[in-house]
Amino acid sequence: MAELILTTFDWVPDMPRGFVRDLRVRWALEEAGLPYRVASVPFRERGAEHFAHQPFGQVPWLTDGDLSIFESGAILLHLAERSDKLMPADARARSAVKEWLFAGLNSIEMASLPWALLKFTGEAPDSSAMKLFDSFVHKSRLAHLEPVLAQREWLGGSFSVADLLMADVLRLVDKFGALAPYRACSDYVARATARPAFVKAHADQMAHFAAADPD
Amino acid sequence: MAELILTTFDWVPDMPRGFVRDLRVRWALEEAGLPYRVASVPFRERGAEHFAHQPFGQVPWLTDGDLSIFESGAILLHLAERSDKLMPADARARSAVKEWLFAGLNSIEMASLPWALLKFTGEAPDSSAMKLFDSFVHKSRLAHLEPVLAQREWLGGSFSVADLLMADVLRLVDKFGALAPYRACSDYVARATARPAFVKAHADQMAHFAAADPD
Repeated sequence: MAELILTTFDWVPDMPRGFVRDLRVRWALEEAGLPYRVASVPFRERGAEHFAHQPFGQVPWLTDGDLSIFESGAILLHLAERSDKLMPADARARSAVKEWLFAGLNSIEMASLPWALLKFTGEAPDSSAMKLFDSFVHKSRLAHLEPVLAQREWLGGSFSVADLLMADVLRLVDKFGALAPYRACSDYVARATARPAFVKAHADQMAHFAAADPD
Repeated sequence: MAELILTTFDWVPDMPRGFVRDLRVRWALEEAGLPYRVASVPFRERGAEHFAHQPFGQVPWLTDGDLSIFESGAILLHLAERSDKLMPADARARSAVKEWLFAGLNSIEMASLPWALLKFTGEAPDSSAMKLFDSFVHKSRLAHLEPVLAQREWLGGSFSVADLLMADVLRLVDKFGALAPYRACSDYVARATARPAFVKAHADQMAHFAAADPD
């Protein structure tokens, strides 16, 4: 079996630490018990080799033999095809895992990431843009996700890549203090992030970036 | 083989016509030559049955035997597994199709949809939020997609679900007049939307909604 290599930045500022998307891949690899090593590319100077692997100059990407895969969602799906710890065998459950993986990315994060960007850049709470994205996140999305998560432990029946993706997306909402009103969503994030694979993945990412800090 | 049923709204206002996401599914089904029928749910009153199929009260969803699948990305991936017109057989090309499907949704649309929402709601062109998302769409995304599309006809080597998704995402940028500076992106959208399957899918969506207009 080919060696799995996860590439991320060599260093990032304090703010995104714990949220850089290599976390999703680390978490999946730890859940699956697949051996891997972590490689680094410069955060400050992104060269042609970087863009050849990740066309937008971001991270992560995964190398699996002669395949190089970017996009955290695509990497998670690739790994899920290799391990029943990441996606169950049953056809109906697999379909549910895939639709919820896309829903985490394209329904929830599609609303929560722009909302978080506005929060991060200090947009006034009563601006038209902030109100638009507050409504998108809360009324259009979390208000509907809440009853779903109130009825099930994990989105696809058993824990899967859909859950680690969704939990990671919701962690960013929680970071800005906006998840508290959603009891089922909050409990779900707590349940997912209590898993040893998350704890290790998170600690490993923090240590990776801290190791590059100047003394 | 089970009958494929695509469910969309019975009617929508003029503005989103031609851009409702059932278009992506119609387009894929037409490319693949898979028979299907279109069912409708009320746009104005969204009931429990609707939310049972699509937890956020949106459209489309696809019924394939005992599977009901929501999220346009998940539906495209499901159909691509059924037809080599939508995803090639070669493992390397399949991997590229999947990563670009996710990139269309989670890198490009993640930037362009919030940007389009701000445009649509009349956000001032010089507001902090509009500047943030202008930069996200142009500098962080389209400026990097342009050289990729300048070098290839289709994202995965041959036409696939990644292209129909990406072209549809870029159509919305084009609708607001912002795609013109990107020659390769503009040519790509023109090439994709000249395909007979797109022309039929688009005409069918327009006719579907027009049929429900009051006389």
